[in-house]
Amino acid sequence: MSGNRRTDDQKITLSEVDSRNILEAFGVPVAPLGLAAGEKEAIHEAGRIGYPVVVKAYGAGLAHKTERGVVRIDLRNESDVARACHEIRDAAGPDLEGFLVQPMIPGRREFVAGLFREEPFGPCVMFGLGGVFAEAIADVAFRVAPVSRAQAMEMMDELRSAALLGPFRGEAPADRGQLADAIAGLSRLALERPDVAEADINPLIIGPDGRVQAVDALVALDPGVYGKMRDDGADAGSSAEEIRRALDVMTRARSVAVVGASRNRKGNFPGIFACMRNFGFSGNLYPVNPNIDEINGIKAYPALTALPEKVDLVIISVPARLVPDALADCIASDNRRIHIFSAGFQESGEEEGIRLYRRIREIAQEGGLHIIGPNCMGLYVPKNRMLTWVHAPETAGPVFMISQSGGNAQEFTHFASKHYRVFFNKVISYGNALTLDSTDFLDYLALDPDTSIIAMYIEGVRDGRRLLELVSRTNPEKPVIIYKAGMTDSGARAVSSHTGAMAGDRKLWDAFFRQTGAVRVESVEEMADAAAAFHYLKTTRGRRTAVLSVGGGAGVSVADTCAKMGMDVPALSAETIARIRAFIPPEGNMLRNPVDSVLAFMNLELLGKVFGILSQSGEIDNVVVSLPLDWLYDQETGGSRIDAIAGYLAENGRGLLPGIPLVVVWRQFVDSDEIRGKADVLADILLEAGIPVFDGLRRAVGSLAKLAAYCEFCGKAGDSRYQ
Amino acid sequence: MSGNRRTDDQKITLSEVDSRNILEAFGVPVAPLGLAAGEKEAIHEAGRIGYPVVVKAYGAGLAHKTERGVVRIDLRNESDVARACHEIRDAAGPDLEGFLVQPMIPGRREFVAGLFREEPFGPCVMFGLGGVFAEAIADVAFRVAPVSRAQAMEMMDELRSAALLGPFRGEAPADRGQLADAIAGLSRLALERPDVAEADINPLIIGPDGRVQAVDALVALDPGVYGKMRDDGADAGSSAEEIRRALDVMTRARSVAVVGASRNRKGNFPGIFACMRNFGFSGNLYPVNPNIDEINGIKAYPALTALPEKVDLVIISVPARLVPDALADCIASDNRRIHIFSAGFQESGEEEGIRLYRRIREIAQEGGLHIIGPNCMGLYVPKNRMLTWVHAPETAGPVFMISQSGGNAQEFTHFASKHYRVFFNKVISYGNALTLDSTDFLDYLALDPDTSIIAMYIEGVRDGRRLLELVSRTNPEKPVIIYKAGMTDSGARAVSSHTGAMAGDRKLWDAFFRQTGAVRVESVEEMADAAAAFHYLKTTRGRRTAVLSVGGGAGVSVADTCAKMGMDVPALSAETIARIRAFIPPEGNMLRNPVDSVLAFMNLELLGKVFGILSQSGEIDNVVVSLPLDWLYDQETGGSRIDAIAGYLAENGRGLLPGIPLVVVWRQFVDSDEIRGKADVLADILLEAGIPVFDGLRRAVGSLAKLAAYCEFCGKAGDSRYQ
Repeated sequence: MSGNRRTDDQKITLSEVDSRNILEAFGVPVAPLGLAAGEKEAIHEAGRIGYPVVVKAYGAGLAHKTERGVVRIDLRNESDVARACHEIRDAAGPDLEGFLVQPMIPGRREFVAGLFREEPFGPCVMFGLGGVFAEAIADVAFRVAPVSRAQAMEMMDELRSAALLGPFRGEAPADRGQLADAIAGLSRLALERPDVAEADINPLIIGPDGRVQAVDALVALDPGVYGKMRDDGADAGSSAEEIRRALDVMTRARSVAVVGASRNRKGNFPGIFACMRNFGFSGNLYPVNPNIDEINGIKAYPALTALPEKVDLVIISVPARLVPDALADCIASDNRRIHIFSAGFQESGEEEGIRLYRRIREIAQEGGLHIIGPNCMGLYVPKNRMLTWVHAPETAGPVFMISQSGGNAQEFTHFASKHYRVFFNKVISYGNALTLDSTDFLDYLALDPDTSIIAMYIEGVRDGRRLLELVSRTNPEKPVIIYKAGMTDSGARAVSSHTGAMAGDRKLWDAFFRQTGAVRVESVEEMADAAAAFHYLKTTRGRRTAVLSVGGGAGVSVADTCAKMGMDVPALSAETIARIRAFIPPEGNMLRNPVDSVLAFMNLELLGKVFGILSQSGEIDNVVVSLPLDWLYDQETGGSRIDAIAGYLAENGRGLLPGIPLVVVWRQFVDSDEIRGKADVLADILLEAGIPVFDGLRRAVGSLAKLAAYCEFCGKAGDSRYQ
Repeated sequence: MSGNRRTDDQKITLSEVDSRNILEAFGVPVAPLGLAAGEKEAIHEAGRIGYPVVVKAYGAGLAHKTERGVVRIDLRNESDVARACHEIRDAAGPDLEGFLVQPMIPGRREFVAGLFREEPFGPCVMFGLGGVFAEAIADVAFRVAPVSRAQAMEMMDELRSAALLGPFRGEAPADRGQLADAIAGLSRLALERPDVAEADINPLIIGPDGRVQAVDALVALDPGVYGKMRDDGADAGSSAEEIRRALDVMTRARSVAVVGASRNRKGNFPGIFACMRNFGFSGNLYPVNPNIDEINGIKAYPALTALPEKVDLVIISVPARLVPDALADCIASDNRRIHIFSAGFQESGEEEGIRLYRRIREIAQEGGLHIIGPNCMGLYVPKNRMLTWVHAPETAGPVFMISQSGGNAQEFTHFASKHYRVFFNKVISYGNALTLDSTDFLDYLALDPDTSIIAMYIEGVRDGRRLLELVSRTNPEKPVIIYKAGMTDSGARAVSSHTGAMAGDRKLWDAFFRQTGAVRVESVEEMADAAAAFHYLKTTRGRRTAVLSVGGGAGVSVADTCAKMGMDVPALSAETIARIRAFIPPEGNMLRNPVDSVLAFMNLELLGKVFGILSQSGEIDNVVVSLPLDWLYDQETGGSRIDAIAGYLAENGRGLLPGIPLVVVWRQFVDSDEIRGKADVLADILLEAGIPVFDGLRRAVGSLAKLAAYCEFCGKAGDSRYQ
């Protein structure tokens, strides 16, 4: 049977009948559809389906049926059908190949659902508000396939118009099970039939009884899909196991060669060789440079082939135009684990750079090379005394960072360690991702026993599905904090200038975060804040937060900020307030929530009592203590009150609030170095005691909200509905 | 004729006919409506209106007509109408008072419009998506009346479903003029008929030809409106002129009495008397306290009546329970300009406090007192050496601040002066607003020649309409920056605990900001950022922003942040890039936008050339220079590069970029006091040269976006369409 249509982009749109049959086979609740060659058959089909019916023309040449006038609705009997066929025949002319007969489905609520394929994620599923207003209102949810029935339910809840799925003006609530079947069915179709490029169901009608029926559906095939080759430079020749092994050797390297090592500083940067030496790398470090004999008394070699041993890692730091030769030297010397520091490839946007990138990609693929970079800072591994930039803490810690930007890798490590004493076991800055991509590092890291928190800065990714799978798998055990840049039009353009990566579409990345439960941040600072919350607090039972502060105006801000960030500041019960009132008088102390009490900060035993009452109340999941340093600082006593509060919290805070995260916030507005110094004292005392300290309310509450969202997600993920 | 209906809340809902007639009189395009006693008249009306028609039952007892089965649609001829009347008569029974006949209006696009009254703004107008999906989708815009036609147009554009008003699936675009007439008509109705409590038009149908017709409309009257008295404690007995005069005397006070002045410190607070003395108040300062003879050698008085003169300002700082007596003393001594510092009134939520508040309100009203407070910090006027708190700069400046919170008044003055050298001429912290409210201060200030920027922190306001009028009038001349707290549920609760003010509804405050063009901020820091932008930059031509930075990762962040904040980072034209390329080579320098060039920051003549090219290009409205201090700081040269950049920008930046705001952003991640010190040097040099310096991208771009939005609003406000 014909009716299939080839469209401009070489896809073939299947006929209504073929489309319907495929969707039905995958569990989509499709309305009956009869195909009739002529009037008599149409009447027969109408009788079989049941009146009232709709009759439409059928034929490959008939794309816009309503506009062509070849649709007749609400036909109530045989003569209506006969007349409709007659009129349609006149309107369609030679394009007519037959008639389609459908039931006239009642229902005012129309939705759409579909599947499509888009890089970097591949098969995706959508569900949204349909009908004539669909485009104008644009209320749509996306997911990357596979989509479970539980995820399909979440897609429904995500719509602004979700209320339409409930009881609606005398009509029954939508059968969400049927909708979930439809969405999950599209997901299976996408995965099991790679030749299906797109499917589009519009409308999916909710009847007055809540029953769901797909009325019009079209499926498009991409016949070329099997022949397509991905030309993306991935480390395709290597197995995941080989890559893991290579990364293991690189991060624990005992011998490193620096190609292009030099005695000259370049601006403020002393060169990678000097950085490694200064950081105290204790393995064999070989400068490779044909133009010099030695650097600081260390013998230099003219080429890798001249080295006395094969090394664990080659770092290439020569101008871009010399990188192909350096890679040839790697292959000649059988050194296949490489970090290319050099920039000036496709990210430059210049023809020469793009040409060079293609060239080194060929060399890398042919030579089976494992490459970090180019255009990146490479590796920082404090335990192994490896560092390819200037400053970084020598202390090691639980965070593993994967960063497409060298600048952000440096800024994040500085910021997290400085403000929160959160340290790192490995940082990989990987730039243009010639062979090794974020997915490879994540795959390697997920099992690393030294890592308990993963932080990623990514601009693009080659295999979004693999990223989704890896993050989904890793996140419940080790929270994955992701800063995805280039989420806006102008941002995306800057991405392509920076590393040449293709940035994904915002809606699909939204879906990525919803599906994986990864912790989403939008700046380096926010990433550090979140890392601190996860490091110190680990878990929270919920979003109900008590805020203890001094000064009413600040109290209002706290409540506003909490609400904005998605945290609750619930009113305390009359009973709880009465228990606090028993020892804190009303004047100057507002005992609601925020709890605003000067007295409790002047007499810390009272603060402890408040903690105890909050803890016992069962009304609170988190406690934020907000300290206005200006106000607490007393010139006569040199701010000793602040020390006393910090000491009291450090000693008693966690004990008095078992299972309840305690977070301290400070604020400073007066221009005073002494007061600023007190913030440092506060951080010293509290971080040592495992209590995170934030500069400002917003950062604290934002981080708590991320922790709460993570715990909720993991709780749900552990729920059998979500398996 | 009856048909009017009294509802539960004492409002009277008018009949369809009366409702229609009122709306028509105010320019709302209402569909014809015939009223018929019986079948014959109905047929006559149908003939007059034109077929097809709708017939409905008419009667006060018939509220839910569709559910009652007393509506018949799409009646095509006389016999259809006759049958409909018959059926309706059977269904309605004794409730039937007649028949309504309307044309059957074609059109798939349904909207709603209405008016209502809500504190603190009074009459308000709404417009939104209508039809059966209206509630589920909740796509509605609000304005406080009066609403001009131009503002009505903005309401249409504000809807998410605004696309439905354009050409739509073969139907003509909606007649926006008619819609504007309907909205503006509702606004006039609200203002000219105070007895009209509500009006509700649903649906307002857009026909296929774009014509607008209101089909169902109901108007409700509030018969008690004329008898209602406002019991809100406003300074109602005084004219605006009297209040202005009182405030003028208070802010320029040459004699101040402090009732409750004491020698004792209260925690860290030395008392108001000491604050005034320490800040150098040079007028007559009288301690009033029956329990002491003197403070620091200054004679104390037992009561105001014992003072040698009437004073310009009385400050009351005694426990709440003693405030009524202090006010009686004010009246007895004919001192009517008062600041009540004391807290413990209705904001406490305690019965005793509420009782005391009522008591002092009575005293204030009877005595015609002008009161700032209670529960507030009062006045800071550097020129007059008045300060009622501990720290504040002695330098005076262009900002006037009105703050309902004393804490925020202090924090804002500290923050703005410390970070941006933005200073104040007057700050009024007014707490519970017993008589004087934010509107009184704004009215006084708007004409103050010392003020060019107004900053307000408000939690609630008594007369929202007056605030709207005053801000609308003031804002085009002197930007009004407003931090409205208590915009969320939990925030609003904290407001009521803080000052007992009623916080308005979020949607109406959104409308307030749209209508006034006031600069909206959501924290003290954001308020300071905005004040700095307005102070140093004054104006911008638009949102197209060039960002000059070092380091690609940061470039991506800049573009992301700009887009998120509503600023554009447009691609530079090929011609402009080529002009820059002529002297900056590709390697290590990305010349798109952000312009990422190491070289330009190493050779500042090149930076100047880039400025010149950007300025001449006509492609850019603002320039942001982003300086990563860690990267620029060179240990060998002690960061002299940063000094050099600051010096170059200070000397040449504004000259090379005429008419283009220049903003500098610094970032620091490395933990180094030396580098941090460089940020201070940078700020010293650049602020002195009138170039604002921000800590981080987000704050800079957020402030630029506020400036751009303000300039756009004022441009439109000056446009004749908006008169």
